[in-house]
Formats: sequence, C-alpha cells, structure tokens
Amino acid sequence: MRLSRYFLPILKETPKEAEIVSHRLMLRAGMMRQQAAGIYSWLPLGLKVLRKIEGIVREEQNRAGALEMLMPTVQPADLWIESGRYDDYGKEMLRISDRHDRSMLYGPTNEEMITEIFRSYVRSFRDLPLNLYHIQWKFRDEVRPRFGVMRGREFFMKDAYSFDLDKESARRAYHRMFVAYLRTFARLGMQAIPMKADSGPIGGDMSHEFIVLASTGESGVFCHKDLLDMPVPGEDVDFDSDLSPIVDAWTSLYAATDEKHDEAAFAAVPEDRRIAARGIEVGHIFYFGTKYSDPMNAKVTTADGQNVPVHMGSYGIGVSRLVGAIIEASHDDNGIIWPASVAPFDAAVVNLKQGDAATDAMCERLYGEMRAAGFDALYDDTDQRAGAKFATMDLIGVPWQVVVGPKGLASGEVELKNRATGERASLTPEAAMNRLVAEARGAS
Amino acid sequence: MRLSRYFLPILKETPKEAEIVSHRLMLRAGMMRQQAAGIYSWLPLGLKVLRKIEGIVREEQNRAGALEMLMPTVQPADLWIESGRYDDYGKEMLRISDRHDRSMLYGPTNEEMITEIFRSYVRSFRDLPLNLYHIQWKFRDEVRPRFGVMRGREFFMKDAYSFDLDKESARRAYHRMFVAYLRTFARLGMQAIPMKADSGPIGGDMSHEFIVLASTGESGVFCHKDLLDMPVPGEDVDFDSDLSPIVDAWTSLYAATDEKHDEAAFAAVPEDRRIAARGIEVGHIFYFGTKYSDPMNAKVTTADGQNVPVHMGSYGIGVSRLVGAIIEASHDDNGIIWPASVAPFDAAVVNLKQGDAATDAMCERLYGEMRAAGFDALYDDTDQRAGAKFATMDLIGVPWQVVVGPKGLASGEVELKNRATGERASLTPEAAMNRLVAEARGAS
Repeated sequence: MRLSRYFLPILKETPKEAEIVSHRLMLRAGMMRQQAAGIYSWLPLGLKVLRKIEGIVREEQNRAGALEMLMPTVQPADLWIESGRYDDYGKEMLRISDRHDRSMLYGPTNEEMITEIFRSYVRSFRDLPLNLYHIQWKFRDEVRPRFGVMRGREFFMKDAYSFDLDKESARRAYHRMFVAYLRTFARLGMQAIPMKADSGPIGGDMSHEFIVLASTGESGVFCHKDLLDMPVPGEDVDFDSDLSPIVDAWTSLYAATDEKHDEAAFAAVPEDRRIAARGIEVGHIFYFGTKYSDPMNAKVTTADGQNVPVHMGSYGIGVSRLVGAIIEASHDDNGIIWPASVAPFDAAVVNLKQGDAATDAMCERLYGEMRAAGFDALYDDTDQRAGAKFATMDLIGVPWQVVVGPKGLASGEVELKNRATGERASLTPEAAMNRLVAEARGAS
Repeated sequence: MRLSRYFLPILKETPKEAEIVSHRLMLRAGMMRQQAAGIYSWLPLGLKVLRKIEGIVREEQNRAGALEMLMPTVQPADLWIESGRYDDYGKEMLRISDRHDRSMLYGPTNEEMITEIFRSYVRSFRDLPLNLYHIQWKFRDEVRPRFGVMRGREFFMKDAYSFDLDKESARRAYHRMFVAYLRTFARLGMQAIPMKADSGPIGGDMSHEFIVLASTGESGVFCHKDLLDMPVPGEDVDFDSDLSPIVDAWTSLYAATDEKHDEAAFAAVPEDRRIAARGIEVGHIFYFGTKYSDPMNAKVTTADGQNVPVHMGSYGIGVSRLVGAIIEASHDDNGIIWPASVAPFDAAVVNLKQGDAATDAMCERLYGEMRAAGFDALYDDTDQRAGAKFATMDLIGVPWQVVVGPKGLASGEVELKNRATGERASLTPEAAMNRLVAEARGAS
C-alpha cells in the first residue's frame, strides 16, 4: 500500500479521554474512532489487525473441529424468556422494540439461540459431538464503557458452543477448546495462562479464564513461573486423541487471578518460582452442563433409546479486545510493537527524499520486491519530513522498515530497521531484502 | 470436510413459508435458519457461500483503490438529526434507546457516519480522492420481510463512499466503481446489467442499478441484447486510467427496469436485439454531490485556498441478498447450481458403500488428493443410502462429484459427475482427478 493513497489519520496529540496505553495508541495510530461511548469505527489500519486476529482464531477453531456458522446480532426476546435469563440480564442487555412492538434485543451472547438451533435439527447421539461457533458483533450496554476496545459496548467476539451426550464427552470437548486456546494465543504472540475461574452453581473444574500477562493488566494474577516456559501444542496436535495429559500439565501448576487467589496454595510454590503480575482476560471456557438444554428442552436420544438433555459448554474469545490486549502487552514509548502474526503491515519502505529520481526508483524497486516476496508492504511515498515518517512507522509498529535516502544510496546502501529491537543495519538493497525474507521465514 | 462431522441439516420437506425458489432451497439445503421475521442464522454451508461472495466483493473493491474499514452497527441518532434524515427515514429505521436513554439506531446505511469520519480527519484537496468502504450488517425494519435473504431485515451489505473535490473527479470515482461492479458480478458467475436509475433531486446520469437477469426476478427489465455479450474488463484494467470508454460502451445501449422503461426508446432498438426479461437488483451506485457534506459541513481546502463541500457518492452491493440472487439465477429441479467461484465446496467424494474396505480406501485416497490439489472438498462418509447421497449433493450444488462404489471399483473405475450439465463419466480414479484439476484450472 502506498501511504499517499492510504487513509491513516495519525493524531499528533494524545487524546485526553484515553486512560490506558492501548486506547491512546489506537487513537493516535489512526486505528479507530469513537462514534459513541464504547462504540468504535475501525479505520483501515485497525481493521487489518482485527482481521488478522480473527483469521488466527478461526484457523484454530477449525483445526479443533469446531464448525463455523453465523448467528444474527438481533435476537427475539422469546428465547431469553424461555431460558429464564431475560429478566436476570439487567440493563446490560440492549433491549429493542421493532415496528410491530415485538421485543427484540442486541445479542450479548448466544447460548439461547444456539440451543434453539440445536434442538431444531439434532435428535440423536449419533450427531454428537458437535461444536458450533461464530465470530460476530455483540452488544453489552456497560454502564461506564471505558478503556477503548478493552471494555466497549459493541464488541467482536468468537463464541463456540459444544454439545455432548454426557459429562465425560463434554470434558473431551472442553479439552479440545483448552488446547485450541493455548495455540491461538501463542500464535498471536502472547503468553496466555489458563487460570481456574468461577464455575457457578455447577461447580467442578471445568471453567478457565485465559489471562495474558501485561504490566498494565486489569487484575492481579499469581502463578507458577514454569507456566511461562510450558510448551504449547504444535500444529500436529491430534484433536481426536486424549488431550488430558496436556490439560493436566497446564492445570497442575498454581495459577489464579486475585479473585480466586489462595495464599496458602501459592505459598506452597517454591519461592523462586512464584510470579505475581498483572493480567488481562482474553478468553473464557466454561462447561455448564444442562443449564440451557433443560429449560429449553434440547434433548437427544441415547444408544439405548433414552431421551436426555444435551451437555453444553461455551468458549469465548474477545477478538476486538485482543487488539487492545496485544498492545498493552507489547509497546514502548514510541508506539506499538506488533507480533509478526498480527502486524498490519509486514514491512515498509521509507522514502527520505520523495522526488529524488534515484531514491524514488530504489523505493519502487524494494516495494515491488517486498510484494513479490509475499509481504504485506507499506510504502511511505509522502512528502513528509524524515522525522515524522520515522515516528509514524514506529507508532503504527511496522516490524521491519527499510529506509532509503540519497546519502545511503551514494554508498550503495539502505538502512534496515527492526521495530522491536531498534536494531539498525546499513546494507546493500539485496542484503536487506535477503535478511527480510530470511526473518519472515523464521517467524512463520 | 467429512460429512459425518459436518452440520448440514437437510430438510426433506419444502418449507411452506418460502414463496420463492432461493428461499426454499436455502432452507432445504441447510444453509440458514430463520430466527425472527427477516432475521436469519447462517448455518455452516450458507456461511461458506456468503464468505466467498464477500471475498470477491472485497478483492474488487481493493483493486479499484477503495480502502476497507468497518463502522459499527449501532449509531448515535445525533448524526441523522444533523443530516436531516432522522425524521424522514420513518419506521424502517430500528430506533434504540440505551440504558442512559440516549437515542441510538441500528444503521440502515452509513452516509452520515462516514461523512462525520471524513470531516474529522480530512482537510485538504491533497488527501483526495478517497473511497472508504465497509462490509457490515445493516438493519431495515421492513414492514413485511419476505423472500428469505432477498428482503431480510438484518442483511449484509458492502457500502463504499467516495470523496472528491469536484463533480469531474467524482465522475472518475463513479467510473471506478462502475467497472469494479462489472468485474465483481462477472466473477460471481452472473450477468449483471447496469441500468439507469432514479438519481433523485440532483439529476444527471450518475445513478445505476446493477440487475441480474433471472426468470424469477422481482422486476421486469428491458435491454439491448448486445449487453449480454459485452466484454467485462479484465484483471489488468488500469483504475488510474480514463475508464469512460468502458462506461460509455455499457451505457450507450438501452437498458431499463420497468420503473424507468421508455417504450419509444426501446422501440428504437432493432427488434431482434430487444430483450424483455426479469431481473434482481444486486447493486446500486449513486453520485449525490454535496447532499450530506453541505448540512454536515464536510469541507476541504482547494489548491487556491477556498473551502468547499466535498462531492460524494455511495456504492452498495447486497452481499447476503446475492446468495439468494445467485440461486434464483442458477438452479434446477434438483437444487442449486453454484458458479464455481462461490460453491461452498469445489468437489465431493460420495462413498456408496461405507464400511466396504476397498471403497473406503479409494474414497480416502481421492479425498486426500482433492485436498492436496487445493480443492475445498466434501467427503460423504455417512451410512445413508445412495439415493439420498446423490440428492443431497445435487441439492447443495457441489459442482463436481466423484462417486465411488464396489461395482465400479471392480472394473477399476469411479464416476465423475458434473452438477451443472448432469454429465457423468466412468473413469479410472487417476483420470477423474486429472479431469477435475484441469477443469478447476480452466474455471479460475
């Protein structure tokens, strides 16, 4: 993309309303614009990141055998009356009356609707297990939306719902999502630790929050240091196999948010292995048994002819929230440091003297070579001064920047800069491209 | 995808509420489920088609230089009060009060919001031309939603908005979208004819509807037969060049919906070149000048220092509606006939005797080869009877079906079936795969 043709409205001043760094950086970097409290437009740069995150979430859901579908944003209230949650949900639910005065709502979550879909089509244990997910906009009418996309009202979420014949099968479904989540967050360049969460009236051990460590995180977290070095299952993990050894390894070590923190248990962790840090919740997985299938009469026939309510779980990832969470976990004073997998552009060419024939020609050549090599490349071909160009590249966090100017070219060199380390190297254009391609191969 | 693990709830009976063929077939093929009047869930098969259409629409918008962003579904009412449309819009607008009693609405379209975004960031003619688009869910509270996704309430739409310094530049922006639309619909396997549409109070010649010919179409259309053979610009069309020769060629021949039909002008078309048919509107492009920039004060500075309201156009494609439109244009008594570019699966393997070792092994082999060749492949590995399997494949419209059974295998052959032509050929497995690969290369 040529920057002269792009829409990247960088803000020079730090917006006053933004209380946390991800919110500030997303506004300054021209990633988004607030349209109402907690409601944002995603400008081109922000949308690119959102879509890359969404893509990774989708791939890992599919790999784990979940099937993608898409439920609408507007739901009839009837379903929620049936499950008993319509009155309970309170003011966070955005209630709507349509032109015929039918009670509708903007879905804050989809347990009711997916249960309705399930009971409409599935009758037999032979059709299980089943895991259906969608990635869709949701609305929760927070009383005080804040922190940008970290606590917005309209937000983008992946929610999966598993259906199984009994609790043992449901546990296997739960394990599949557990492993899929480990892989998802690792691919997003983050250390996410599963931590035991409140499992409500059902009790048991099948509710985990996935927490990303970030110094600016919303909650205090306590965990065993070995969790940071725990290997994440590879691409070749077999989701049809017994995944409990993986889950057991991750859950055998102490990890809790301050809400569930147990000082005594933490004290049992060797002192040099204790970590007290801050974290952000980016995912939540939850087995809830027959909580919805019972009142909504979602039953299947067993092998011996009985008719039993199906066992369900739900599995959420806050996709739009992740954009903020990644920035909270990875930034410096100059701006955002994107993990390679979600960077809006892989690499950029910075032209230090637009209009200088040799510089322009070299920039065009490198920009062409980057694209030919499969990079999503940005070319700053504007007539801004060098300092502003450097600042923009660091602010928006382009991982690799090739800076081209007449002085360097006079000695046959361009400068290759790594955003994360700040390392700069003067290289021939050929060497710079070779390095870029080698680094990209290494990262993928 | 193995059908035994997929969620494809085929309906045996034709749903009574469905008045038109696309609605009937989408319900029968398990593509979608109605959740409320005019509000649908997209089941896995339907979502695949929707995403493929969305992908083609996106590629062609990007090729034409439009920039993707994403506006929220919920909008503040203020913007619409400012433009003067809040009261005009009537009951089709889904109005919402949030918990603080602020007036919001579910966006039926986005002229106001995009104008607000534009005026917040863009000040100078140097930043023009600009075309921003998004593909997002919209809501129009139709008094009587019907015809499935053809006239739903919650629908998926691509809407682009162009910003230019003056009418001449706006015309160039209009031409770029005109050409992008020709390419988009052609890639979707449809003959879409641009037809002059009502341009409202602004007048002029810059408003066209794109109409797909389909015998079950909603409106009568009249056009010159040569339009059906008019070449669509190729991938190499230069969107920076003067596109008016292309636009002039397409608009020089008679084409009108019954609303704008002019009997006298049609009579001037040579008799053997006259077509009277039926059609479905799938896109609409529209130049509206300063209709929103004037009241909303969206101005730019010209080269000579004047401050002028920006000239705008909007360009819509009904993405969810297209799923229905394609089916209306392409089906037979057995089901849907997808154009290759949007088929939910490229090819399928049908196992006629699940459990027979040789048949299972050959099916696995072919299914593996299809995937290795890059096909999005479906494998019917269920234990349904052959007739039901054939019916399902034709109903959901898999373009190429490889049928494998013990009888054929005894003589070393499988059957390759083409869904569109009904042609069947007995071939060795190798020849069937070669044919498939060759056909796929030809189609792309």
